[in-house]
Amino acid sequence: MTAGGLGRVETQRVVLFDEADPLVLESGARLAPLHVAYETYGELDAERANAVFVHHALTGDAHAAGHHGDPARRGWWDRLIGPGRPIDTDRYFVISPNLLGGCQGTTGPSSIDPATGRRYGLEFPMFGVRDLVTVHRRLLEHLGIARLHAAIGGSLGGMQALQWAIDDPGAMRLCLPICASAELSAMNIAFSTVAREAIMRDPGFQGGAYHDTGWGPNIGLAVARMMAHITYLSEESFAHKFGRARRVEGAPPGLGPDFEVEHYLHHQGASFLRRFDALSYLYLTRTMDYFQPFEESGIAERLRGNATRFLAVSFDTDWRFSPAHSERMVRDLRTAGCDARHVEITSPWGHDSFLLDVPEYHAVVGDFLAEGARATSGAMA
Amino acid sequence: MTAGGLGRVETQRVVLFDEADPLVLESGARLAPLHVAYETYGELDAERANAVFVHHALTGDAHAAGHHGDPARRGWWDRLIGPGRPIDTDRYFVISPNLLGGCQGTTGPSSIDPATGRRYGLEFPMFGVRDLVTVHRRLLEHLGIARLHAAIGGSLGGMQALQWAIDDPGAMRLCLPICASAELSAMNIAFSTVAREAIMRDPGFQGGAYHDTGWGPNIGLAVARMMAHITYLSEESFAHKFGRARRVEGAPPGLGPDFEVEHYLHHQGASFLRRFDALSYLYLTRTMDYFQPFEESGIAERLRGNATRFLAVSFDTDWRFSPAHSERMVRDLRTAGCDARHVEITSPWGHDSFLLDVPEYHAVVGDFLAEGARATSGAMA
Repeated sequence: MTAGGLGRVETQRVVLFDEADPLVLESGARLAPLHVAYETYGELDAERANAVFVHHALTGDAHAAGHHGDPARRGWWDRLIGPGRPIDTDRYFVISPNLLGGCQGTTGPSSIDPATGRRYGLEFPMFGVRDLVTVHRRLLEHLGIARLHAAIGGSLGGMQALQWAIDDPGAMRLCLPICASAELSAMNIAFSTVAREAIMRDPGFQGGAYHDTGWGPNIGLAVARMMAHITYLSEESFAHKFGRARRVEGAPPGLGPDFEVEHYLHHQGASFLRRFDALSYLYLTRTMDYFQPFEESGIAERLRGNATRFLAVSFDTDWRFSPAHSERMVRDLRTAGCDARHVEITSPWGHDSFLLDVPEYHAVVGDFLAEGARATSGAMA
Repeated sequence: MTAGGLGRVETQRVVLFDEADPLVLESGARLAPLHVAYETYGELDAERANAVFVHHALTGDAHAAGHHGDPARRGWWDRLIGPGRPIDTDRYFVISPNLLGGCQGTTGPSSIDPATGRRYGLEFPMFGVRDLVTVHRRLLEHLGIARLHAAIGGSLGGMQALQWAIDDPGAMRLCLPICASAELSAMNIAFSTVAREAIMRDPGFQGGAYHDTGWGPNIGLAVARMMAHITYLSEESFAHKFGRARRVEGAPPGLGPDFEVEHYLHHQGASFLRRFDALSYLYLTRTMDYFQPFEESGIAERLRGNATRFLAVSFDTDWRFSPAHSERMVRDLRTAGCDARHVEITSPWGHDSFLLDVPEYHAVVGDFLAEGARATSGAMA
């Protein structure tokens, strides 16, 4: 599974909503134009029935697999997407967009507001996971695909897949929320609020109007990322990766980075600044906090008869979105009569496991996608 | 145990080292004068044999029990210290100092360096847990006490008790490290480094020379505290205390504080600024990171014949210093032939349990202190 992989891929960009046909958010707010960046891998079959929609997590982007010129630097889910891989591009047509509110090609708070000629900043409207899905649905329409074989994503990505399956019963055969949650816990929200405060209290934030000033909330964003990164790994993986190793054994004690784990986190914080925007971080984390689909009124009725097959996957050492989150999600789906199950995978790597080489996880995803295809073909034959 | 409690108490302040007799740190650095703030509760008995030394944790102070005038605002360990309480002031003479490097009366990095007339700031020497203990030993000497009945403390407090028992085999009958660690994990250090970076990168930090400028690293210190506070509670206690309750149900979504857990953390961050100094936070967290007594060469020999009885107490939901930390500490003590045991207490409140009303914990501490007294009297009779 390590050999091969996709070759060079390109990011596309399309205007999916414009002034004549704006995106109307659930709140009633309107956005136009709305650009969406996306990539596709593999070929759409003649029946247009083999599409797999990949939803990225909080800090992901459209570049999920293959490379943009340097074969050594590959997309964030390259381990799962490619020829012979679990999301097999020899069988499936894979669609991977950057989401609404992002900063990697899709319109977000750092985009220019045509009404003012300035970046939206904090004028960008609040949006929810349902709004992310509205944009995904429009992209699918744009690609001329009526129904997905599957929607899949990790963390915030899994929330999008779940919301889509709930909102549009005919949208997909299979839905795979990986280490996702249908309701953040108080502790989840706690980490989220500290990250946002680190950004918003940074004097460089300038009320959100930091772009084009040569300054920005870089301190806050790096601190937010370093803290969040801790919560993506398990205590076990930290111990395994770093232990108490120091960069220079025997160096005199000091307050600056000394232990390897400190250097690692500093690097994570610094490199994040080169690829992510603080406003997107604020909006997207907040979207996760408010997500609570099973508390919506009428949810049981809306799910009745939904033929989507759900597979929630979680990792035993994930303490950010523990297996209990997936367990509850599946319980709520089953209570509404849905075909849903939960597989808890043993993996030492915590929440980040969804991005890593965990053979059992890859097998579970690959098998579900393939069996789902066979089962559905059989049923429809 | 809730009724009663100590009445009004006073903080004392004493110069324990001066220019003629400076504190010599393990690093060789010298400090003078060294002021120490402390409180005592109860009465020293005729044999001067009933002293219990209380060590505070990272952000504690000398004011462990009773009140300073407002009976509603009581010391941080008032639940454990007082007449009839586990650390029974009808039986024990309790000593509770603010530690070296602190900011509540004992000399620390925000104190005036007599050599320059300015605050030490980052010129304050690095120090270790052994140095904290050196100062405690001098305080005991000052009080005319040769030997303790017990040393006890939670978290960093427990580290001090442990180090003292190791360094001075005759110092105490009983040693009670509560939810402590003899070796921080990579994840512990990770949280610690993010907190320090939040402080040191804050422009208000001004290289540590922020005092008397009317400005300071308040953003960084509040962020550090909010983050740390999350790690002191358990997921369960967050869920129980806050769930997903919002301050104003039905309010429009926004980026600022909305959920009750957010308001709580903001309050924790803000109130911390009124009582704690950023430099003390930097130095004391670092002292914990470097603490690793069982890795010192010759430790087994130094512990041989040590007659101190050790009781490590941990809490099952504490994920900052989990029961595994206490387990390892006790294993290392027993390997060296010491009388050591570990009691893991069931409590929903995480690391903060050591400050709270957890009856089984209070009973275990009270019994060990009392039985230890009887056992030792018997042995010496």
